[in-house]
Amino acid sequence: MTGGEEATKGERTRKKLVDATAALLRRQGYHATGLSDIVAESGAPRGSLYFHFPGGKDELARAALLASSAEWRARIDAATRDAPDLGAAIDATVTLLADDLESSGWDNGCPVAAVALESTSELVRATVEEHFASWLDVVAGRLAASGVAPAPARQLATVVMSAFEGALLLARVKRSRAPLVAIGQALRAMIGAAPSATPSPVPAGPVRTTTRTGARGTSRRRSPR
Amino acid sequence: MTGGEEATKGERTRKKLVDATAALLRRQGYHATGLSDIVAESGAPRGSLYFHFPGGKDELARAALLASSAEWRARIDAATRDAPDLGAAIDATVTLLADDLESSGWDNGCPVAAVALESTSELVRATVEEHFASWLDVVAGRLAASGVAPAPARQLATVVMSAFEGALLLARVKRSRAPLVAIGQALRAMIGAAPSATPSPVPAGPVRTTTRTGARGTSRRRSPR
Repeated sequence: MTGGEEATKGERTRKKLVDATAALLRRQGYHATGLSDIVAESGAPRGSLYFHFPGGKDELARAALLASSAEWRARIDAATRDAPDLGAAIDATVTLLADDLESSGWDNGCPVAAVALESTSELVRATVEEHFASWLDVVAGRLAASGVAPAPARQLATVVMSAFEGALLLARVKRSRAPLVAIGQALRAMIGAAPSATPSPVPAGPVRTTTRTGARGTSRRRSPR
Repeated sequence: MTGGEEATKGERTRKKLVDATAALLRRQGYHATGLSDIVAESGAPRGSLYFHFPGGKDELARAALLASSAEWRARIDAATRDAPDLGAAIDATVTLLADDLESSGWDNGCPVAAVALESTSELVRATVEEHFASWLDVVAGRLAASGVAPAPARQLATVVMSAFEGALLLARVKRSRAPLVAIGQALRAMIGAAPSATPSPVPAGPVRTTTRTGARGTSRRRSPR
C-alpha cells in the first residue's frame, strides 16, 4: 500500500472477494464453492485473492462469515430499532428474513447455516461457533433489556435462534414464508409468557402481559397478534 | 437377479452403499461426499455402485435420504410409542437426538439438513422437500391424535420441526445438548397451551390455557437430564 488511493482500491477488491464468498457460502455451502467460482462472482483478478487472503479459501471463508454476521446484525438492528415491544421486533425480523429469502428465489437462507452443517477446517468451524455464540448474547441481551429475567433470557434466546434457524431451513425447502410466520407467532406467545425480571405485580416494560412467575395462566390468553 | 441367494447378496451390497451415503451426507453434506468416499466407507466394490445406481450420485443420494428418513421415523416412533402424553414424547425425542449427536462426537445432526442447505440437482432437492412434507404430516397427525385441533396442529407441527432442526444445528455447532433441551422445554409449554379440538367454555384462540393435553404446570419441573 503506497497511498490512500491505492489502499482504497485494494480495500474495494478485498470487499468484492468477501462479498462474493459470502453470497456463495450462503447459497450453496463451503464445499460446492470453488476459488474459481469466487473469482468469477467477484470480478476481481485471480492474483488478488492470494494477495488479500494468503491463507486461501479458509481465510476468505472466515472473513465472509464474519462480514455476513455483522451485516445481518446491522440489518436486523435497523429493522427492529423502532419496534415498540419484543413481539413487534419478532414480526419485523420475520418480515425481513422472509422478504430476503423470497426475493432470492428461495435460495438465500441463513448466511452461516450451510457451512455450519458441513465438515470444515477448525478455523471455519470455530468461526461458525463464534458467530452463533455472539448472536445468542445479542438476543439474550435484547430479551433481558426488555424485562425478561437473565436466566430465562438465555434459555429463550436459544429457543429464538433455534426457531429462526429451523424455520429458515424449512422455508427454503418449501419455498414458502409459512414456517417463518408460524415460528414468529409461536415466539410472540412464548415471549409474552416469559418470566419477568421485575418483581412487581404491575405489568412493566415491553413484555407486558406477564405476571411475576410468568409462563402460565392468564398471560397465555393474549391474542397471537 | 437369478435366484434368492444372489438377490440377497445384491441387496446387501445395495444397502451398504445406501448406508454409507446416508452417513456421509449427514456428517458432511452432498458436495463434500465423493463417489470414492462412498465406495471406501461402504466397502462395496466400485463396480457395484453403477450397477445398483445407474443414475450415479444423485440416485444414490435420493435413496440414502429416503432411507434416513424412514430409519429415523422408526426410531422416533419406537422411542415415543409408550409416552403417556405429548410432553413425554417430546422429552423422549430430545433424549434420542441428543444422545445420538453427542455419541457421534457432535458430528451427526439431522440426516437431511446439510443437503437441504446446499444447491443440488432437482432430484435431490425434491427428495428433501418430500422428506420434510411427510414429516410435517406425521407430526401434525400425532398432535391432532392427541387432541390438538387440525389447523393449529399443522401450524404447531411446523414450529416443532423448525425448533428441532434449528436446535440440532446449534447443538452440533456448540457441541452441547443445551439447545435441544431448551427447545424441548419450550415445546412442552407450547403444546400445553395449544387449542384443543374439543369444544370448551373457554374462548377459543390459538394460544389458550387448555388442560386437556396436560403438558404443563408441574411437568415442567423435571430435570433436563
